[in-house]
Amino acid sequence: MTSRTEPLTESLLRRFHAVIPAGGVGTRLWPLSRADAPKFLHDLTGSGTTLIRSTYERLSPLSGERMMVVTGIKHREAVCRQIPELEPADLVLEPEPKDSAAAIGLAAAILHQRDLSSGRGESTIMGSFAADQVIAPVDVFQEAVREAVAAAAPSADSAGKIVTIGITPTHPSTGFGYIRAGEHFEADGAPHAQQVVEFVEKPGEEIAQQYVNSGDYLWNAGMFVAPVGLLLQHLQQTEPELHAGLTEIARSWGTEQQDEVLARVWPQLPKTAIDYAVAEPAAAAGDVVVIPGDFTWDDVGDFAAIARLNPAADQESMTVLGEKARVYSEEASGVVVSETKRVVALIGVENIVVVDTEDALLVTTTDHAQSVKKAVEALKEKGDSDVL
Amino acid sequence: MTSRTEPLTESLLRRFHAVIPAGGVGTRLWPLSRADAPKFLHDLTGSGTTLIRSTYERLSPLSGERMMVVTGIKHREAVCRQIPELEPADLVLEPEPKDSAAAIGLAAAILHQRDLSSGRGESTIMGSFAADQVIAPVDVFQEAVREAVAAAAPSADSAGKIVTIGITPTHPSTGFGYIRAGEHFEADGAPHAQQVVEFVEKPGEEIAQQYVNSGDYLWNAGMFVAPVGLLLQHLQQTEPELHAGLTEIARSWGTEQQDEVLARVWPQLPKTAIDYAVAEPAAAAGDVVVIPGDFTWDDVGDFAAIARLNPAADQESMTVLGEKARVYSEEASGVVVSETKRVVALIGVENIVVVDTEDALLVTTTDHAQSVKKAVEALKEKGDSDVL
Repeated sequence: MTSRTEPLTESLLRRFHAVIPAGGVGTRLWPLSRADAPKFLHDLTGSGTTLIRSTYERLSPLSGERMMVVTGIKHREAVCRQIPELEPADLVLEPEPKDSAAAIGLAAAILHQRDLSSGRGESTIMGSFAADQVIAPVDVFQEAVREAVAAAAPSADSAGKIVTIGITPTHPSTGFGYIRAGEHFEADGAPHAQQVVEFVEKPGEEIAQQYVNSGDYLWNAGMFVAPVGLLLQHLQQTEPELHAGLTEIARSWGTEQQDEVLARVWPQLPKTAIDYAVAEPAAAAGDVVVIPGDFTWDDVGDFAAIARLNPAADQESMTVLGEKARVYSEEASGVVVSETKRVVALIGVENIVVVDTEDALLVTTTDHAQSVKKAVEALKEKGDSDVL
Repeated sequence: MTSRTEPLTESLLRRFHAVIPAGGVGTRLWPLSRADAPKFLHDLTGSGTTLIRSTYERLSPLSGERMMVVTGIKHREAVCRQIPELEPADLVLEPEPKDSAAAIGLAAAILHQRDLSSGRGESTIMGSFAADQVIAPVDVFQEAVREAVAAAAPSADSAGKIVTIGITPTHPSTGFGYIRAGEHFEADGAPHAQQVVEFVEKPGEEIAQQYVNSGDYLWNAGMFVAPVGLLLQHLQQTEPELHAGLTEIARSWGTEQQDEVLARVWPQLPKTAIDYAVAEPAAAAGDVVVIPGDFTWDDVGDFAAIARLNPAADQESMTVLGEKARVYSEEASGVVVSETKRVVALIGVENIVVVDTEDALLVTTTDHAQSVKKAVEALKEKGDSDVL
């Protein structure tokens, strides 16, 4: 397949640096996903590849070695095992979780600092894509990223745009935020770009149906492509304190002071989402563009998603995840995720979800998949945090 | 409470020897019950006592130290731990399972041999009660056994009777065989004794309902009280080969030849149930009497029985068995049996059965409790015998 956007975008892609924020425990996937082994470190599609590795492999054809991961300090080893190709300077380890504005903002600030040091006078175009999403087909996704890079690029008379990739909704989901797309946005190499009118929060069912019917709304998948300078400008305007802290850390990055500065400044940073800190105010200022993404996208939010993403192999319609799984099922359907060598026998249970780990067992149904979060909160209160 | 049958029965009870056949894996209670840890070695009522120990404690007020256990050789240590009071000569270890006629017949033959050696000229009255049944109240059961002993006793002009205790049915069960009771049987100390017309196999639903409506039928709980001489007479008539083998073993019992004879003769014995070998032909000959038992009786055949026998303690109507159990349930009902320290979280599952052991996990519903046997057979075929 040849790209529609050759050759302009190819030169822009050399300025493209992929950023993978790898955070979020994925509470609704407990007991599989937990503080020590969050969602992105699991293979939830039976592909043999963890979600973070799949994310890397999806992006590296575009970014090459220009790849940064922002994750919690306790995941250092796991992430290095998953992405041994990562440059040490491109592994950003958060001393504690500070939400997405700090994580993505620090990546932007570090990349911006490199731009300044290089003296090239060109802004890196970063693309931030969460580590725990499932996307197919990959080439359609990559084509959308190419368009996003083209639409984001600054020019002589413009600082560029913050470009998001919005997913064409397949149903009126109440679990996602939406992006309201407006007029066509004119940009070389980005024939599908549209101005973003606004970002809207997760709607109720009726509103969600109206959104889907209108054809004007896309799912907000939290994908952002932007010149780092522009992203930081907006961050500075909305969250000056956060911007100042991140800039201080970025200036020390790669120097002997890095660890000391990070340890001192990071804990003081305000906690906020990139949506509030950058995307929404930038959209209000007319600075956000969207590329519609006609690929399937799943954030694997719960075990119902796992059942959906992994069609059952046998006629019993039982989805089984787990290399060592020994599952026997009879008049049963649903999903079994096995992290043990135990025999699991399922008899006469429909749409069941069984997650079997060494220290915790979950039994629920796909209909109750969203309630797992509540169970985790209750276990925390009961003092069972050893298994969370 | 004073017995209705004093003092005659008290002198007869000195000739009473309780026999506890402890066999049967309890396949429908897999993975809790299995070849290495059969049903009778478990506490299935949350009483803190295994079923075999409860059986011992129910009988010892009647038999005193006159107690015999017949079990598989691999359960020697477990049984000795459960009943340290047992005399070594009263622990009969089967080299391999040979069904109930051989097990109960050997007990009878050994006790008969002791009668002959003693020169007292009196027949021991044995009472055989399976090791894996749950009975309450115990005093009502004991009173029925007293009547059975009284009705079984030989007299100057009679070899006595084979007496069974039949359970007054509470519902038209299709899972049990039935005993058809006939005319009143006149015996001192056994005011409720009735002649047995016949034993009938597990009926269909319609027939079962007719049985219950008629008032003439009792559940066959496999309880037999009989003078050992009479029991052996019937066995000799129906199964002469089995009788001869058992007699040979019994003659060597307690001698240096015991183990050699047992190892040589036992494997050759025919395999048959005590019902076919003794009870049914003896009933046809008018030699069987029944005492109706107005106590609750459960053979804990499956996990639905465990749910029934262990009312849920909390408002969630979730029954939990297992000392170390850490169960969290939300909008869930049913039974959890936990042999591990694992946290078990149940969300939105009704009438669920979860059995969590170190090497196997069962998830089913109380409605499917009977199907567990099928699962075990399927696992055997699949080569998963390590967990059976």
